[in-house]
Amino acid sequence: MIKNPPIPVLEKNAVNLEKKIKVKFKNIKVLENALIHRSFLNENRKWELQSNERLEFLGDAVLELVVTDYLFFNFNNEEGDLTNWRAALVCAESLAPIAEKLGLGEFLLVGKGERKNQTRSKQNILADGFEALIGALYVDCGLEVSRAFIDKYVLVRLPDILQNQLFIDAKTALQEKAQREWKITPQYVLMGEGGPDHDKWFEIGVYLNDKLFGKGKGPSKQKAEKEAARKAVARMEKMMTEIKKDK
Amino acid sequence: MIKNPPIPVLEKNAVNLEKKIKVKFKNIKVLENALIHRSFLNENRKWELQSNERLEFLGDAVLELVVTDYLFFNFNNEEGDLTNWRAALVCAESLAPIAEKLGLGEFLLVGKGERKNQTRSKQNILADGFEALIGALYVDCGLEVSRAFIDKYVLVRLPDILQNQLFIDAKTALQEKAQREWKITPQYVLMGEGGPDHDKWFEIGVYLNDKLFGKGKGPSKQKAEKEAARKAVARMEKMMTEIKKDK
Repeated sequence: MIKNPPIPVLEKNAVNLEKKIKVKFKNIKVLENALIHRSFLNENRKWELQSNERLEFLGDAVLELVVTDYLFFNFNNEEGDLTNWRAALVCAESLAPIAEKLGLGEFLLVGKGERKNQTRSKQNILADGFEALIGALYVDCGLEVSRAFIDKYVLVRLPDILQNQLFIDAKTALQEKAQREWKITPQYVLMGEGGPDHDKWFEIGVYLNDKLFGKGKGPSKQKAEKEAARKAVARMEKMMTEIKKDK
Repeated sequence: MIKNPPIPVLEKNAVNLEKKIKVKFKNIKVLENALIHRSFLNENRKWELQSNERLEFLGDAVLELVVTDYLFFNFNNEEGDLTNWRAALVCAESLAPIAEKLGLGEFLLVGKGERKNQTRSKQNILADGFEALIGALYVDCGLEVSRAFIDKYVLVRLPDILQNQLFIDAKTALQEKAQREWKITPQYVLMGEGGPDHDKWFEIGVYLNDKLFGKGKGPSKQKAEKEAARKAVARMEKMMTEIKKDK
């Protein structure tokens, strides 16, 4: 499936990366493939190389499962907390410095145009390359070797994230995204309340541009709002991936 | 970890579901947990039950990896195609009818308020319940049993999806989401072109509200646009999950 023609620098980089991560690949071509960024191919289109995007697609799913599995079995917290912690672990801002430390920045074959870039684009290339590396580990060495790798390089950051609260709660997440990107402030509206004094409930809805994005119910307004925000963030996410079959 | 007090109807439903999917659970309590929707707990808060949301969180990641793995190893298509196909397989519209067929609609414990609901909310409860069921299979029976289950109920739909094109390409996806939800039409702008006649390249940027959301490069404008749209959709998705540590 992976057939890269020999490029000396690519071979050398893959061997050096192997040493760095202390994993011996059965088929080094798989690891080489993880190092080819699309921008390199755009500038070198004579070679019939495949970019690392398919491996990134796979590695992203492997990373997500391994992190999710770890959080599920090691913490009894509710799903909202686990979602926030996972996001803090696997976001580009988190993965890029890990990739940098591994030397991926030097090992990746990137186009000259991108090489000059020092900002967000560079961060994404590093984070994507890291996910492609996980994809390559999964293809060549299987799930358990990938899990050990993710333990060592990604999950190791969890204590720091929890201790220093390097994650944000649902209300803040919703607020920041809606404001920064769409210049909208979420509006929380009390939709109902009831129950006897010792067992009250509140229902809160959160609106973006007069459109209901999420509802939450809970024993306090705070909890109901948090739940509504969580639903709204999830809904915004699903909006993007959801496919309307019957269009 | 999962400690549900006995509720006769819950026990009965879990046993019936076991028969339906022909899987014998070692710990039936795990399967019972998959059947408890949050809305039921809101109306029955005296019981110390846990909703199925943690299992849904886990099952969602298992489903994603199994589907991604299958697509990666069985098709040589580029990542953009695989992403579209995966979205068509795992979206709520796709999972809800599968869940319905399994009888999840009858087995799930849902609040009375939600029971009346016949629209999107019901669809989401079914799809989420199906993911929780996958989570329960993973916890109790491991990855390979979960994979067999996903093969049988989800991946079986792939030939139909491919044959009848029940997925949409990146440009259409971006167009629909941007328009439906934000009343914005994506604008494609030629940002550069070059190369000799036999080897031309085009670079296209796609803007939402005058903000650059994605750039694509390719040997035709069509391909460059598709790539730009794919990046823009990915960026919109990441916007929602990304965590700003340094806020």
